[in-house]
This record gives sequence, structure tokens and C-alpha cells, in this order.
Amino acid sequence: MNEIKRTDVNTLGEFGLIDHLTKDVFPIHTATKRGIGDDAAVIKGADDNVIVVTTDMLVEGIHFDLIYSPLKHLGYKSMVVNFSDIYAMNAFPRQVLISIAFSNKYSVEALEEFYEGVQLACRLYGVDLIGGDTTSSPRGMTVSVTAIGEGHQDRIVYRDGAKAGDIICVTGNLGAAYLGLQVLEREKQIFLDHPEIQPELDKHHYLVERQLKPEARKDAVEYFHEKGFKPTAMIDISDGLASEIFHICKQSGTGAYIEEAKVPIHPDTEELALEFKINPITCALNGGEDYELLFTIDPSDLELVKTMPDIFLIGDILKPGEGITLHTTGGKIVPLEAQGWKHF
Amino acid sequence: MNEIKRTDVNTLGEFGLIDHLTKDVFPIHTATKRGIGDDAAVIKGADDNVIVVTTDMLVEGIHFDLIYSPLKHLGYKSMVVNFSDIYAMNAFPRQVLISIAFSNKYSVEALEEFYEGVQLACRLYGVDLIGGDTTSSPRGMTVSVTAIGEGHQDRIVYRDGAKAGDIICVTGNLGAAYLGLQVLEREKQIFLDHPEIQPELDKHHYLVERQLKPEARKDAVEYFHEKGFKPTAMIDISDGLASEIFHICKQSGTGAYIEEAKVPIHPDTEELALEFKINPITCALNGGEDYELLFTIDPSDLELVKTMPDIFLIGDILKPGEGITLHTTGGKIVPLEAQGWKHF
Repeated sequence: MNEIKRTDVNTLGEFGLIDHLTKDVFPIHTATKRGIGDDAAVIKGADDNVIVVTTDMLVEGIHFDLIYSPLKHLGYKSMVVNFSDIYAMNAFPRQVLISIAFSNKYSVEALEEFYEGVQLACRLYGVDLIGGDTTSSPRGMTVSVTAIGEGHQDRIVYRDGAKAGDIICVTGNLGAAYLGLQVLEREKQIFLDHPEIQPELDKHHYLVERQLKPEARKDAVEYFHEKGFKPTAMIDISDGLASEIFHICKQSGTGAYIEEAKVPIHPDTEELALEFKINPITCALNGGEDYELLFTIDPSDLELVKTMPDIFLIGDILKPGEGITLHTTGGKIVPLEAQGWKHF
Repeated sequence: MNEIKRTDVNTLGEFGLIDHLTKDVFPIHTATKRGIGDDAAVIKGADDNVIVVTTDMLVEGIHFDLIYSPLKHLGYKSMVVNFSDIYAMNAFPRQVLISIAFSNKYSVEALEEFYEGVQLACRLYGVDLIGGDTTSSPRGMTVSVTAIGEGHQDRIVYRDGAKAGDIICVTGNLGAAYLGLQVLEREKQIFLDHPEIQPELDKHHYLVERQLKPEARKDAVEYFHEKGFKPTAMIDISDGLASEIFHICKQSGTGAYIEEAKVPIHPDTEELALEFKINPITCALNGGEDYELLFTIDPSDLELVKTMPDIFLIGDILKPGEGITLHTTGGKIVPLEAQGWKHF
């Protein structure tokens, strides 16, 4: 490669890089209803249905560490994080393809464990495993999953439909997966330094499970369909609440405010955050990997949403000039900052 | 990982491993018309159409070497090999998703080059780039592509439709891509040993291009549609003619014979094979990466097929008991052996 100019990818960040590389991409087929820029792409399907498609890549040493992630959990999580993107479109995952590259250090039995997790997730979420690729890798493991979902064309929810006055909702507590990861990293370090010490994971069972074996909020999307209404905008929380709020506001052309006191945080998250000397709200805002759904509703749907189990109303969508802010428990109004994951 | 038993994946091989890991996988949705086991999976689409989906993973150091593969070519090839799987179903690629994991040694400009190739292939083949994922990797580059195609439900061609008496056809010469790779590997070695020597690639331009920048046989599938007939079985040649013949015979429950003298081999392939002291037919049978289409036709369609440009009739489908054999130019009948790629 003879390069005259060399720009480090970190100058753009993940989302900036995607925007930059795909700035000239415009779909030509009328069947392509939505391309790059949401949780999933949307294609015309049978009758009044659409097909939604999403893909995610998980890389050993970046997204997972096999020292503490059992392969069965990894297989399960690889599926669930993609299903979550389909639910975030208010659609249901139906088919999935999985590709896996792995070095020769992995045995057939290890791969069986991985596929047990894959197939368990498929069974529980009602998804057909329809294809994939297996190949070798010089080192480490890389997993790539593509999930295909189905939804009614009038029920698909994008990130860009929020409007001033809408209420911001979240389906469950935030920050737990991030602290689960911190516990695992700490115990890994202790184990590496003192192999004779048994890891103390039992008392952090809830947090560790949120990290290693997350679930996608199928139930919430079923509820929306049952009650016959839909959110105005929706996204799943993979990079942290702040980052997802920014996506919705950017694409909807709105502002927003979040009330810190209303952001749901599990007692175990609170407790461990304090032990790690991190403000719990920071875990919720920037931790990521919670895979809860963040959505906005028209105030007229409030009564329907209130009856949902595990639902939290955490703020409001504002007009574009009104900024994106956090109302702290201390009574201050501060600009929200989206850190998301720094992968590069 | 506490493993009691440890079976090396090499004892199963790539296809054996996939069969083993997915032996309990059965689709539950009626919309899933075909799952694992063909060039692409098939899902119900709009009206009488179906949606076909395929995915492939390319790993640096296994599938490509950036010492001699320009990133633009790599982006192009990543697309084309997936489009080829869609054409092998007698369908047309419409949408594609690309995920890429790369280490921080890659600059924004390097990724731009890669995406130039991706977008060029999309333009030339009329495919919409609708999504993907970009992430970092501790080392090297991994590319995963999912292509989505469209076809009429009555026109989809599987691997399992061949029957005794059908004629085996191929759309172009074989073995060139494999020898292109051998040239590149030889010149790489010379360059590493003697950096002052310029690589001699010009005189092997045709072979090198077949390796680095293959094309998919869109024209053949367009011809089938234009003439209103369809092959009885079809597969694209990614692992070598022998391996693909075995797939068709295994899934169709037939035998087959190939006439060595009729297998198309380019003069440049002939010449260089001799230089490398390899039998040219071995390159065609076991080389792979030609991305030509291998298909079988009912003899009643012979007249239509004969008028195709670049078409070669290389053998016949036999009854199951009659084996899978090669009639050599020397007049011998030998069992065909499928080596395919040994990736593990």
C-alpha cells in the first residue's frame, strides 16, 4: 500500500467512519425501503410485510474474552444482540445466519458448546438458523451474525420518528452489563496474578449474567403489537443510554432531556458502582450492552405504556434548539455527553 | 474451558464440521423455504418471489494476503464471491451488508480504497449496500458479507435437482484463479528474499486478475431467464470442480462422470501449470475460486444451452450406483477425488 496521506481512524470514531465511508451510498432498488443508518435495513417482503436485516461482528479480544466468557454463553449472546436490533425496529426475528472464524486451538467440542448457545437462543426466540460460514483464522475467534426479521410495513419503527413532546421510555435497568464486565475483568486480573484464589463471582451473579448472557426485549415488542400502538422512535441500548439518545435526536432532528432520578438502576449496580468509585449514572449513560429498548411515545399513548411491566419514563423529547441535557438529582441541568464504545 | 474430550476439527473437515454442528437444526417458520445446505437460504418474498440469502467470511492470512491483494480488489472480490452464490440459485443479488474488523494499522484512506471496491462491485452488479458493521480487531482484517437476492419461486435452482441423463455444463475455464495465486505466492517469496527484484506479474496478468478480481456470472443467469428455461441443479465453483460435482451428486443422489478433455482450461493456465509441474486438470478440479457456474440441464434444453457464449459441456449425470468418475485424456476411468480447500 503506497499511501500518501494517512488519517488515523480514531479521528473519526466508529459512527463518523461509517458515515464517511458510505456517504455516496444510495439504494437503487424500490424494494430497498431503508438502507444504512438504523438498527436494521428494511426491504419489501410478502404482502404488506417488510423484511428487516441487521448484522453484527464480534471479535475476540475486543468484544469478548474467552477467559471468562463460556462458549455457550458467547453463542447465545451473538444471537441475542442481533435479535435485539430486529426488535428495535418493532419487528420479530425469523431467520439467522452465523459465520465463525476460529484458530486450530478450538476443538470440535468447543464449537459444539458455542453452537449449543446459538441453537438455544434460536429456540427460545423462535428463530430459524438458515446458514453461515465456518472458516479457520490464524488466531482468535471472530463471529459474524446476520439476523432477518419480519414486520408489518405500517408497524416498523425507525430512529427518526421522535417529535417534541414525546415521552422517552426504557424497558429495564441500565448499567448492569457494564459493571458485570468490570467484575469479570477484576477477577481475571486477580486470577492471573494469583491463580490459587477462586474468583468471587457468585455474589455478583446478576451483573455478570447481564454481561455474559443478555436477553432481548421480545416481550416489549409483543406488548406493542398486542395493544395495537407503536412507539414514534426506537433503538436498542448497545452503546449506552447517552449514545442512543443522541442517535434518536440526530435522526429525528430534536432535542431531549433525561431526568437522572428516573433512570432505572439496579441495586446491585448501585452498590458495585460505589465499590468501583464510579457514579452509577455514568454506567447507565455510557456503559452499554444492556440491550434494553429505548423508545419514544406520543403522550396520547401514555396510559397504554404505563401498564407495561418494567417500564420507565425517563424524560421528554424537546425542540431542536433546546439541546440534549441531563437534569441531575442535584438539580443541575448539564449537557448530555455520548461516549459510546471506543473501539478503535 | 474444562474439556474432557478434545477432537481436532481437522478430523471432520469444513463440510463435515458444518454437518455435525447443525445436525439438529430444522426450520420452524413456513416462510423459511430452504435452510442450511445450498449456496444460499431461501425465504418467502413478495408475491411469487423468494428472497435468497448467503454469507461468507474472508480472513486475512487465510483467504487473502494484503502483501499482494490491493484493498480495492479485496473489497470488490468480497462482494463478487457472495453475488456468485446468489446467481448459483438462479436469482439476482439486490442488497448486501458488509462487516469489517480491522486493526489500527489501517488508515481511513486504506478503508476508503476497500469501500471503493465494494461500491464499484455494487454499481456494476446493481446491488444496494444497505448495512454492515465496522469494528476494530487486535490484529489483521476480517470481512464478512451477507448478500440478499431475489428470484421467482419457480425459477430457483438448488443443488439437489440433477437426475441421471442430465448434461453437466460450466460457464468458463477453470484453474486460472488457483494458478494466479501460485504466481502471487512465488513473487511474494522472491520479493521477501530479494526486495530489489521487481515482481514479474505482467505476463501472468490474466491469471492474477482471475485470482484478485474475479467476476460472477450474472450474464449466464440473465441468459437462462431470457430463454425461459432453468438448469436442473446449479452451484458456483468456489472450492474446485471436483468438490462442487460431489455436492451436486450427494444432494441429488446421483453419480456423474466428467470428461477430462472437455474441461475448459485457458492456455495461460496450461502453460503455467506445466512451469509449476502441476497437471492442469488438477488445477481445474481442485484449485477453486473460479466463480464459474456449474450446472446440469435436461437434455431437451441442450439446443438452448449450446447457443450460450462460453459454455462447455463437460460430462453427464449418472445413476447413483455408477459412481463419480473422471474419463482421462489417456482413456482411463478413475474415481474423482474432491479435495476442496483445507482451511483448518
